[in-house]
Parts: sequence; structure tokens; C-alpha cells
Amino acid sequence: MRWTNYFIPTSKETPRDATAASHVLMLRAGLIRQLAAGVYSYLPLGYRALRKVERIVREEMERAGAIELHLPVLHPLSMWEETGRVEAMGDTLLRLRPARDGDEGDWRAQTVLGPTHEEVITEIARAYLSSYKQLPVNLYQIQTKFRGEARPKSGVLRTREFLMKDAYSFHDSLESLNQGYQAMYDAYCRIYDRCGLPYVAVEAESGPIGGDASHEFMVLTDAGEDFVALSENGDYAANLERATCLTAGSVEDETVPRTPPAASGEPPLEEVHTPGHGRVEDVCAFMGLTPAQMIKTLIYDLKALRREGGKEIEWSGWVVALVRGDHEVNEHKLLKAARAALFNELFLSFELATPRSIEKLTGAAVGFAGPQGLSERADALLIDRDVAAMRVAASGANKTDYHVKNVVPGRDFGILPNPSFKCAVVVADVRNVVDGDLSPTGSGSPIRLRKAIEVGHVFKLGTKYSDAMKATFLDPQGKPRAFIMGCYGIGLNRIMAAAIESHHDAGGILWPMSIAPFECLVLALDPRDEQVMRTATIIHDALAERGVDVLLDDRDERAGFKFKDADLIGVPLRVVVGKKSLAEGVVELSQRREERKEPIKPEDAAAEVASRVASERAAGAPGR
Amino acid sequence: MRWTNYFIPTSKETPRDATAASHVLMLRAGLIRQLAAGVYSYLPLGYRALRKVERIVREEMERAGAIELHLPVLHPLSMWEETGRVEAMGDTLLRLRPARDGDEGDWRAQTVLGPTHEEVITEIARAYLSSYKQLPVNLYQIQTKFRGEARPKSGVLRTREFLMKDAYSFHDSLESLNQGYQAMYDAYCRIYDRCGLPYVAVEAESGPIGGDASHEFMVLTDAGEDFVALSENGDYAANLERATCLTAGSVEDETVPRTPPAASGEPPLEEVHTPGHGRVEDVCAFMGLTPAQMIKTLIYDLKALRREGGKEIEWSGWVVALVRGDHEVNEHKLLKAARAALFNELFLSFELATPRSIEKLTGAAVGFAGPQGLSERADALLIDRDVAAMRVAASGANKTDYHVKNVVPGRDFGILPNPSFKCAVVVADVRNVVDGDLSPTGSGSPIRLRKAIEVGHVFKLGTKYSDAMKATFLDPQGKPRAFIMGCYGIGLNRIMAAAIESHHDAGGILWPMSIAPFECLVLALDPRDEQVMRTATIIHDALAERGVDVLLDDRDERAGFKFKDADLIGVPLRVVVGKKSLAEGVVELSQRREERKEPIKPEDAAAEVASRVASERAAGAPGR
Repeated sequence: MRWTNYFIPTSKETPRDATAASHVLMLRAGLIRQLAAGVYSYLPLGYRALRKVERIVREEMERAGAIELHLPVLHPLSMWEETGRVEAMGDTLLRLRPARDGDEGDWRAQTVLGPTHEEVITEIARAYLSSYKQLPVNLYQIQTKFRGEARPKSGVLRTREFLMKDAYSFHDSLESLNQGYQAMYDAYCRIYDRCGLPYVAVEAESGPIGGDASHEFMVLTDAGEDFVALSENGDYAANLERATCLTAGSVEDETVPRTPPAASGEPPLEEVHTPGHGRVEDVCAFMGLTPAQMIKTLIYDLKALRREGGKEIEWSGWVVALVRGDHEVNEHKLLKAARAALFNELFLSFELATPRSIEKLTGAAVGFAGPQGLSERADALLIDRDVAAMRVAASGANKTDYHVKNVVPGRDFGILPNPSFKCAVVVADVRNVVDGDLSPTGSGSPIRLRKAIEVGHVFKLGTKYSDAMKATFLDPQGKPRAFIMGCYGIGLNRIMAAAIESHHDAGGILWPMSIAPFECLVLALDPRDEQVMRTATIIHDALAERGVDVLLDDRDERAGFKFKDADLIGVPLRVVVGKKSLAEGVVELSQRREERKEPIKPEDAAAEVASRVASERAAGAPGR
Repeated sequence: MRWTNYFIPTSKETPRDATAASHVLMLRAGLIRQLAAGVYSYLPLGYRALRKVERIVREEMERAGAIELHLPVLHPLSMWEETGRVEAMGDTLLRLRPARDGDEGDWRAQTVLGPTHEEVITEIARAYLSSYKQLPVNLYQIQTKFRGEARPKSGVLRTREFLMKDAYSFHDSLESLNQGYQAMYDAYCRIYDRCGLPYVAVEAESGPIGGDASHEFMVLTDAGEDFVALSENGDYAANLERATCLTAGSVEDETVPRTPPAASGEPPLEEVHTPGHGRVEDVCAFMGLTPAQMIKTLIYDLKALRREGGKEIEWSGWVVALVRGDHEVNEHKLLKAARAALFNELFLSFELATPRSIEKLTGAAVGFAGPQGLSERADALLIDRDVAAMRVAASGANKTDYHVKNVVPGRDFGILPNPSFKCAVVVADVRNVVDGDLSPTGSGSPIRLRKAIEVGHVFKLGTKYSDAMKATFLDPQGKPRAFIMGCYGIGLNRIMAAAIESHHDAGGILWPMSIAPFECLVLALDPRDEQVMRTATIIHDALAERGVDVLLDDRDERAGFKFKDADLIGVPLRVVVGKKSLAEGVVELSQRREERKEPIKPEDAAAEVASRVASERAAGAPGR
């Protein structure tokens, strides 16, 4: 391909509002153009790279035995109602507008844009898979998804329209699901390897998509919006929502001090006047303590349905969470603990309490709550393991502008369930891990938190969707049973952006060969010089003939300008054809990643480049 | 691929509501599944065929020098307002619903789903193409389109979500546009040839997409919803909207009798009582005439803006159309003639008149209108050429339950413009051609009307979009000029359906090799027989090794059942491996299109199949 016959609108200017390196470079190198917030056009160079990612994904899915199909974007709303996900998805689920506002009978009003395809694929399984003999099956597609992302950002990393590979597997046993899951997990590893992504697989919550086991594939980069917890020795990896660690007071995971560590021998509670010092940092500075010596008391308002005598009664209550002053509550873990503590309730909403509600419970303004006495009034007390393990602590006094010293867990507030209280008391891990926490494996290795981009996610769904949609097969005994399902997603645009985040320098992109839009750039330094252009064209044509993706920069521009563009678009191999070197009988072969230039005879250039491309391709090929 | 590892849900039953052969066969062969009205999932076999069509389209676009990119589905409404197409598209343009009804500030309320991409690509040209030196450029994509189709039907032939290849070219001169247009026209011919489609290219109106020159590519089949007019000797082809012919009274195209053919010598008008006979067939039977002896008088209500003294005044008026009783009005031609007649008006609406309006103009009930005297009251009289050429005719009497005989054009109603009337009088071609009309080329060849499926459309757009969006480039003199554009669309799903319409028999599909989901089916007749399965597997593996798309039917089913499925899914080449023939040392090679079976040694089968596939591929390859 000749540059002058192609369309590569590079730009020297750093775009406004773009901070992530991939975002800046994709705009500058002419890979993408924003059409609306979170909506991008892929320009020719960007689309070439995206198609290469797509090919790798497709090859690895085929190799893993998955079968490709293609599901529609437009879904009937009713199908999402079947699984209760219209509410669960909320504003993420985009809907069509009826032709006349208010005409809910119009087909548009009953149509949504697919943000994912569990419902549609489960309907297909229900229609066509009738016997255990047809299982397992893994069906996948590469298809555009639409989500009502509230705050699109970082270029193609978080958008409203994106390309996803989503696979869905159907099984007749957990054993088969586990095998299918492992096959997808392995395929994902190969995909990232082949795309040149430095990734980690981390344990993850399954989130709103449901189910009970999942892994996320993360690329570590400061442009990421997620955090992962990695142990230094590599024996543990989880995302922040999910990550756990040893308790500060124990070397055994999940070991919780069941008896108060020091119920006696401590001095009694002592009030300290702390006017206006509601925040942990302020009060610590004022009282001469470290945050690790404090207990943070967080109040949540819970609305729930309580089943009483066969009836459901709506009620509201308080859930109190205690974490150390140097820790943060992990709301996923907290919600899980709250559900476990109040297992008989159906949660309607669970949110940080309003100042008015906090004052009603504690009798004090925000910032002065403490655990003492709250278990007599709250509905659940959820105590982080590290709080339960404290010998003595400071906390709010439940009195505006006062704190207390000498708070002893187990003496001043219960850490064991007490049947005489209406309040459920649970000790659990309800905080985020922090840098330096110890790996839960017990290896003693410290955990480090790293920013990351999620590029894939594998889930064991179980029967969540097949139950909801009554999708069954007949087992060998002729009994109908719900499909056991897995689902597996990869964001293709994110792979491309993550590759750029991982591989760039000040001058531009350093594409991995496997997904580079072109594998070799032939740069004609003096295109007006007949011998230069003839030589460059011969090398270009010879490379194209050998199946190398080659771009010939035949633009009549200054050498410096063309070298800058070459660095920016980041083609891995480069052949520079100039008057001066030709006079010496050579052209210059170089790699984008290296300064070093090798003189090579023009007639040997194509063979050398083709052989390097072939060996890099073989390294990433599906057969290895 | 083994059938038992794949997903081909064939069915014996003819689906309800499916009439078109392609619709029935795509459902029965397990190629598609309907998700909602006009919305289909492509099952694995169907998606394989669709991807082959996609590959052919991509190869031919690349060969023609077009550059691939990928534009979003979500468009800002404002971009469609820039070109005035929100109104022009009407309910076809699908919009997102705001998260809260009535919240027009929500981004969703300002977002539409792309039914086509002229606006988005013109914005890209405006942003990046600044000089004539960058022209011409042809940018294309293969992307899903969304249209609010009111009556989806015939399976994937008319849907709300479909895959389209759309290309847009940008030029600095009409000459360059014509070259670019021709290159696309030729590429389209190659695409249809390679896909095995018997197509015709016909002249077409450009329709709401604008511009002034276009061709449609049509596949002739009774499942089509469009009509094309083809001359028997092949010298003329146009779609029905556009098709014209010689006048009945003349052998020269566009020759209109400027003087009444027989103004004298005819008896005077004579009223005939025709109670209740308002319809042409009825009154002809009653009066003993043929429809060709009648004049049909159609009244249209026009609302328009009239410019008077620099002001625009809204007014309403009548347009009267006259066609012979055996002809139908062509509303596209009529609208064009009305615009030409009333060139100073801006049309707001143009519709068949209401009974009340007809009675007001003619003084008679619907069915009894005639041309006599109407030019004194109507605003335009649009007379079909064949009416103007009549010597004498019958028509309504403008009196309920009465017709008149001896109506003489030019005597009883004006056929020449008359400055003393307020009414514009125009003689023009305002009817549909009918079977037997003569080709407008003057060759004397009769026209035949055929049903057809539109599978592609090429347009010369001119500057419609670049003007509206102020998209300009600098010409060699440094002057900004609007891009001259072309656009070129192909419906991929329709190509697939049209191929099935053209190639099937009672048993199922007869895929052209180029787009068949598999090229060869190896049918193991007795899969429980070890030697049969071993032989079938060896042949299958050898074919896969040679790059042939091969499917092995390894299902443990009756031979008849498997043969029926083989016919249904229509794989072009077949190798049948059975116990009986193996005992004779052979397997059977056959084609889906032929009854004939050739015995062949098992060890020769793969080489023979591979060589036939290779020769069919070469016939359709881009290089030929």
C-alpha cells in the first residue's frame, strides 16, 4: 500500500482532554476519530489493527472448539424482563424511542440494544438443544455492544459502543462446565500472549452478570481505572473488589479472634473533646494517634422486605460497618456480609446513611459515630476482622465534637452474636486490601496494588439464565434439567488500546508485530529521485508479493517529517531508502523499538524482512 | 468440522408465515433464527455463508482501490439535522429513548442509529481532506445498519437490522466522479458474478438519498418486491420507478403530439348514464369499451408554499393526472412533472385527494371525474403522453353516475399550455411502463416486467451532502470547493438470500461454491462401522489439510435422514462413504446439482475434490 493512496491523517498536536497515552496516540496517529462522547470511528489504520485483533481472537476461539454465530443488536424488551435484568441493568440498557412519544405499543418501545447476549443465546439453546447428547456446546460471536455508559473516558477504553467477543457455553454437569471454563481461560491467555499484552488473570466478583466464579484478565497500566492486588511472589492475584488478605492480627486466613483479645486490664472509656475534628486524619493529628489506632464507624441505610408470617413487610434499618482508620470499606464485601447477617431479608436499597439518619442513630453529627452502644439500636454490626483483632482503639463518642479513647472490642461493643440483641453481629473481611497486606495464601508475601485495564472476563454462570428462561435439556434418564452455563467476554477495542498503553515511547506507538496495522514500512526519503523511488517500489512490491503487510511512504515531504510520522504510527520494521545510502549500495533496515540501523543490500532487503516477519508470526501463531 | 461438534439445527417442517423460498430454506437448513419482527440471528452455518459473501465484497472493494474503515452505529441527531434528513427519513430513522421520558437534554434523546452513513463520512472528509491533492478517495465499511422498517418480510430480504457494505467517494471533478462511479459499478458486477448471482443493472431514481444518477443491481426472482423493466433484446433495463418507453402513438421517444390529433370530425361529447359504475373495469364492461379507450382522471391534493413578493404563502390546490384506463400512474414521474409544472412552489405535501376534495373540484362522486373543464379550476393538469395521443376517448362526466363518450384531447380539454388559464398544462410520461411497451431506445424491442430483489445501488450524489455540511477542499487555485461525492451500497444478507432464491430445488439449497458454508460434505453412511468412519475421517482430514472447507456428517442416523439434510443444507460437493461401496473398493463422489454419482477410490477422493474446489475458486478469484 502506498501512503498517498491510503488515508492516515496523523497530527502533531496533542488533543485536548486526552490524557491516557493510548487515547492521545490513537488520535495523533490517525487511528480513531471521536463522533460523540464515548463513540469513535475507526479510521483505516486503526481498523486494520482492530481486524488483526479480531483474527487472533477468532483463531483461538476456533482452536478451543467454540462455534461462531451472530446475534442481533435489537432485542425484545420482554426477553430482558424474563431474567429480571431490565431493572438490574438500569440506565446501562439502551432503549429505542417509540415513533410517537407515549406510544408504548410501538415495536420500538419494546426494543432494547444488546449490552450483552445471555438472554438471546439462552433462547437459542432452549430452542435447539434438547438432549444431553448435544452437550457441551460453546457458541460465540464477535459483535458490537451498546451500553449507556454514564461517563465515557480514556478514548476507546470506556465507550458506549464497542466490539466484543462473547462466548456462551452449555453443559450438563459442573465438571463439564469446569473443563469448558478452563478451555476458555487457556484460550484467553493465548490471545493476550499473541497480542503482546502483559496481562494478569485475577479472581473477580461475578458482578451484576450473576453466577459464582469468575476471573478477570487485566493489563497493568496507569491508564487503567481498576485496581488489582498482586502478591510480590506471584502466588495471589485478585481485583480490588474481590481481593482478600491475612488479618493483621493473624497469619492464618479467615481466622477471627472469637474471644476478645484483652477484655480486661484496659482503662475505661475516656471522652476527649475534639471540636470540629470529624475526619480521621484531623482527629488523629489532634489526639496524637495514627489512623491504625482508630475505628472508623460507617452507617448504612438499608431498605428491605422482611418475610413475617408469610407476608412481606417493607422496612428500613441501619447497618453499621467498622473498619480501622487506615482502611477503606469494600462495599461488595460489606453487602455480602450484610446479606449473610440478614439472610431473611430481600434488599431493596443499601446506601451510605444520610446525615439526618446518622444523627438519629448515634445522637451525634457526622464524623463522631462510634461502635459503643450501637448494637442495641442498629440492625446489623459488621466488624472488619482487623477491628475485632484490635487490643484497644479510639473512635467517635456518639456525641458531637467528642471522641473516646480506650475502646476495647468485646468489652465496649459486642463482637460475638448475642441473642439478646435484635442486632446481627458479624466479624468478616469487609475492607479493601492495602499495599503491604499479606497474601491470603499464607506465603507471607506482601500484596501490591496496581492500576489496570480489564481486557477480558470469564464467568461460571451456573443456571441463573437457564432457570429464569426455563431452558432445559433431557438428561440420560429423560428428565428435564436446566443448562449449566458459562460466559466469556473480551473487549477487542480495549486489547488494542491496552497494547498501545503497554508499548509506546515518547515518539509514538511500538506495535507488537501480531496486531500492527502494517508489518513493514518502506520509507522513500527522496521520492522525487527516480532511483530511490524505483528501489523503494521494488522492495515494497517484493514484500507484498511475499505476503508481508507493507506500507510505502511515498509522500513528497521532508525526511524529518516522515521519520516523525513513522515513529508515531509505530510500524515494527522499517526499510529506509535514501539517495545517500543508495550511493553506498545499501538501504537501512531497522526496528521501531531500536535505534540501531543495519545497512543491507537493496536486493536482500525483502527476503530479510519477510523472514523476520515470518519468525515473529510463527511465535504468535495458533499452532505453537 | 464434524457435524456432531457443530451446530446445524435442520428442520423438516415448513415454517409458518414463510413463503419466499430463501426464507423457508434458511429457516429449515438452520441458517437463521428470528428474534423479533425483521430481526434475525445468524446461526453458525448461515454466518459462515455470510462471512464468505463479506470476504468477496472486501476483496473486490480493495481491488477497486477503496479503503476500509469503520463508522459508529450511534450518531448525533444534530448531524442529521445539518442535512435535513431527520424529516426526510421520518420513522425510518431510529432514535434512542432518554433515560427519563421527556428529558430531551439526555444524550440518548440526541442520538440516532445509523441507517446509512453519508453524514458521518462527510464530517470525516471535512476534517481530514483539505486539498485536491488528496483526491479522489473512496472510503468504505462493512457495518450493521438499522432502519425502522414498517413491514419487515420475506426473512432476511427486508429487515430492521442488516449488514451493509457502504462506500463513499470524494472527488474534485465530475470526470473523476464518473471514473470512481464506473470503478464501483465494475466492482459490483464482479461481486455478483463471484457470488453466483444472475443479476441485472438497471437505471434507478436516486430516491431520498439524493443526487442525480444511479443504478440498482437486481436479481430476478418471484420473491422480489421490486419490478424491473427489461427489453427483450437486452438494450434497456430500468426499475419500475424510473422505466420509460416509447409512446403508444409514436416511434420516437419524447415525441409528444403538439397539435390535437383529430380536433375536428369527431361527434360531440355524449353523456351516458352509468349508475354505480365508478371503476374502470365496470364502466368498460357496461359501455362495451376496453380500458385502453378510457381516460382515468386522478386528483391530487397539493399543499405548497408560494413565493409572492418576497413572502411565502401557504396554499392548497389540485393537481389532475390523466392516464389511459389500462395504465397506472407512476407517482415518482408524476411528482417530477408536478414540480416542473409548478416550479415556483415549495411542496409541503402531495397526496391522492380525499372524496370530499374530489367532489369539490369535479362536482361528482369518486369514480366519475373527467378532464373536461377541470383546467379552469385545477392548478395543474398533467397529461400522460399516451392520453395526449388518443384520437377519441371516454371518461367520467364530472357528474355522479355519468360518463361521457367522444372526448377529444385538445378539443374537450387543453393539451397545450394556455396563458388564459391559471392551470399549468403539461404533457409528460407519468405512467408505469407495462408489459409489451416498446423499449425507449427505439429498437422496437418489447419491454417485459420482472419481479426482482435489489442487492446493490450506486449513486452519484454530487454536492448534496458536502454543500449541506460545508465540506470543502482547496482547489489548485486555493479556492474552497465542495466535494463531489458518490455513494455505493450492497446488502450482504440480501446477496445470501438472493443466491438461495436463484439456486435451490425441492430438496433444498444449491449453494454456489464461492459462498457455500462448506465446500465438501463427507457423508459417513454407517458411522458405527469402523472402516467407514476411518475412511471418512481420513478423507475429511486430508481435505481440511488441503484447505478445503469440509464437513463430516458423523451422526448416527439413518442414511435417508442424512441424505435429506445433505440436500437441504446444499453443500456443493459430496463424498459418500458406505459399507457396501467400500466393499467394492470405492466411495461415491457427487455434486449437489446432479444426480450422477462417480465411484472413486478412497485414496483419490481428497485430491479430486481439492482440485475441483480449486478450479471453481479460481473461476471466481479476484485475479481473473
